[in-house]
Amino acid sequence: MRHSGKLCFASVRLILCALLLAAFAAAQSDPLPSWNDGPAKQAIFNFVRATTDQGSANYVPPEERFATFDQDGTTWVEHPMYTEMIFAFERIKELAPQHPEWKTSEPFKSIIAGDQAAMSKFTGKEFGEIFVVTHTGMSTEAFQNIAKDWLSKARDERWHRPYTDLIYQPMLETMRYLRANGYQTYIVTGGGQDFVRSYAEPVYGIARQQIIGSAVETQYTYNQEGQGILVRPAKGLLNNNFAGKPEDIYLFIGRHPKAAFGNSTGDQQMLEYTQAGGGSNLEMIVLHDDAQREYAYGPAHGLPSTDIGTFTQALYDEAKSKGWIVISMKNDWKRIFAWEK
Amino acid sequence: MRHSGKLCFASVRLILCALLLAAFAAAQSDPLPSWNDGPAKQAIFNFVRATTDQGSANYVPPEERFATFDQDGTTWVEHPMYTEMIFAFERIKELAPQHPEWKTSEPFKSIIAGDQAAMSKFTGKEFGEIFVVTHTGMSTEAFQNIAKDWLSKARDERWHRPYTDLIYQPMLETMRYLRANGYQTYIVTGGGQDFVRSYAEPVYGIARQQIIGSAVETQYTYNQEGQGILVRPAKGLLNNNFAGKPEDIYLFIGRHPKAAFGNSTGDQQMLEYTQAGGGSNLEMIVLHDDAQREYAYGPAHGLPSTDIGTFTQALYDEAKSKGWIVISMKNDWKRIFAWEK
Repeated sequence: MRHSGKLCFASVRLILCALLLAAFAAAQSDPLPSWNDGPAKQAIFNFVRATTDQGSANYVPPEERFATFDQDGTTWVEHPMYTEMIFAFERIKELAPQHPEWKTSEPFKSIIAGDQAAMSKFTGKEFGEIFVVTHTGMSTEAFQNIAKDWLSKARDERWHRPYTDLIYQPMLETMRYLRANGYQTYIVTGGGQDFVRSYAEPVYGIARQQIIGSAVETQYTYNQEGQGILVRPAKGLLNNNFAGKPEDIYLFIGRHPKAAFGNSTGDQQMLEYTQAGGGSNLEMIVLHDDAQREYAYGPAHGLPSTDIGTFTQALYDEAKSKGWIVISMKNDWKRIFAWEK
Repeated sequence: MRHSGKLCFASVRLILCALLLAAFAAAQSDPLPSWNDGPAKQAIFNFVRATTDQGSANYVPPEERFATFDQDGTTWVEHPMYTEMIFAFERIKELAPQHPEWKTSEPFKSIIAGDQAAMSKFTGKEFGEIFVVTHTGMSTEAFQNIAKDWLSKARDERWHRPYTDLIYQPMLETMRYLRANGYQTYIVTGGGQDFVRSYAEPVYGIARQQIIGSAVETQYTYNQEGQGILVRPAKGLLNNNFAGKPEDIYLFIGRHPKAAFGNSTGDQQMLEYTQAGGGSNLEMIVLHDDAQREYAYGPAHGLPSTDIGTFTQALYDEAKSKGWIVISMKNDWKRIFAWEK
């Protein structure tokens, strides 16, 4: 033992010193450099201090530290259309040669023709049909590969970048900062759980088991080699929007989150449920008020109305009355995307 | 920086030495002391080595290390009856004074009278009624408190101990050993998710978000103070048995487990799905063949038949043909409970 002890001291000195220097440097630098100084940034710092300082009245033990993030409009761009919807439309074009009947039947006909006006008027039933042919009928593995493959090739129309480049850098920094302080970060999205799982680990640093999304049932069956596999029938299981968010958070986590981030009426209940957990808690809601660098829509605060990521005046008023932090993209975010100059 | 560096060296020397000594001691001692030497114990060691040694052909990166454990009959005693069923029966007796009508209506009448013969013949529909009145109609918080309270007071009939004392020590050691090697351990049980969540953290060292169980829907609503709460309507969401186990594992984890532990036909699909993930994998199945120290039932291997934790001969044959390890409680486990002499 003596010998190994000596070896240890000889070799760990340098490593330790390097670690200490790194820790000291990190403590000096700003963990949220893409945020402008102001009440939003300060609220994040205050929340972390209040819940992780052992002397704090609202100290939260590590096993109860959970933070939940909506995705579309909260951690990445959702305009002019949800990325997963673009995926579905492009998937239909890709599958069209195998379905000659689509040329004459809606909603497929309009998608294949690229008829934006017709597409903007699709009904819920038509979106359902699009979802069924693009998201179901294959194994779980096959679907994840289809999604991964599309994301590696697809580019958005405005910036001509992979969709996974359209992540908000301030939110990535917030996730990392929370994780560095013992928080488990979850994506809680109305989008498809498996679509998000296909890229979340490299993009957000969030593991598959920490993605809560809308989900179809899966069905256990056997492949030709007799191995157990799961396929995706056209049957919904979780609709992870509105009240579905706290319901599914409870199903997956079994606790109130301590912090929640959203941007639309679909996140209202998640933020309410987070606040209902008591103690120190943090609710933040992104207002898209920067047409220059991203998009501007509400209709809260006099911004243009939208069906995609609606932020009503009523939600804005609830936020103000309950002490939730409204994040102004324009004023609170110094940098929106990692690749900005 | 120099100053803090010096301070560091002065103070960390002792800590480091203590850590090294502890690590050395741990490496020398057996992490599975309640297992007898033999192929079952060896299979666990081989699996961990094959999946965590970076030079191994079947090395598994830490983010893919998941191990799933059935509960009833695999990690704790399930005879003469599932603990959660005993909870439900005793809960009905507790609620009986508020329900005078139960005295004359089944299945409540037989439970209140303690009529074992009648109770053993309850139909699925009757169990459903018992479940509804004992598990639903309250908030999620209220249910967890009811379960926690009952578990703190209830004692089993054979050993006169809290039910949470009836955990199998070899399985606790296996969980700890897997966790020490980077595995995330999950309970995957046909029992109620929230019942298990009410004690899993102190008993298994497994956090709420790692409990996958049968679940009712929850419904988001508001309490009198206007706070968001979840209540439990009488509506099933997940039946986490048989094919439901791999389906729900995928819903929660999004991956094949690398190791799975069960004891009955209800675990067959979970073990198959684990094996179908390929690479090095471990499937273990507990055979209750020790009437002396615990219970003996099968009917595999000529043991008596049972409706609770049925282990058929077909499952036994599948295990043998697929290389799953059948754990003989009698031969493989040196000690079954922590409190044994």
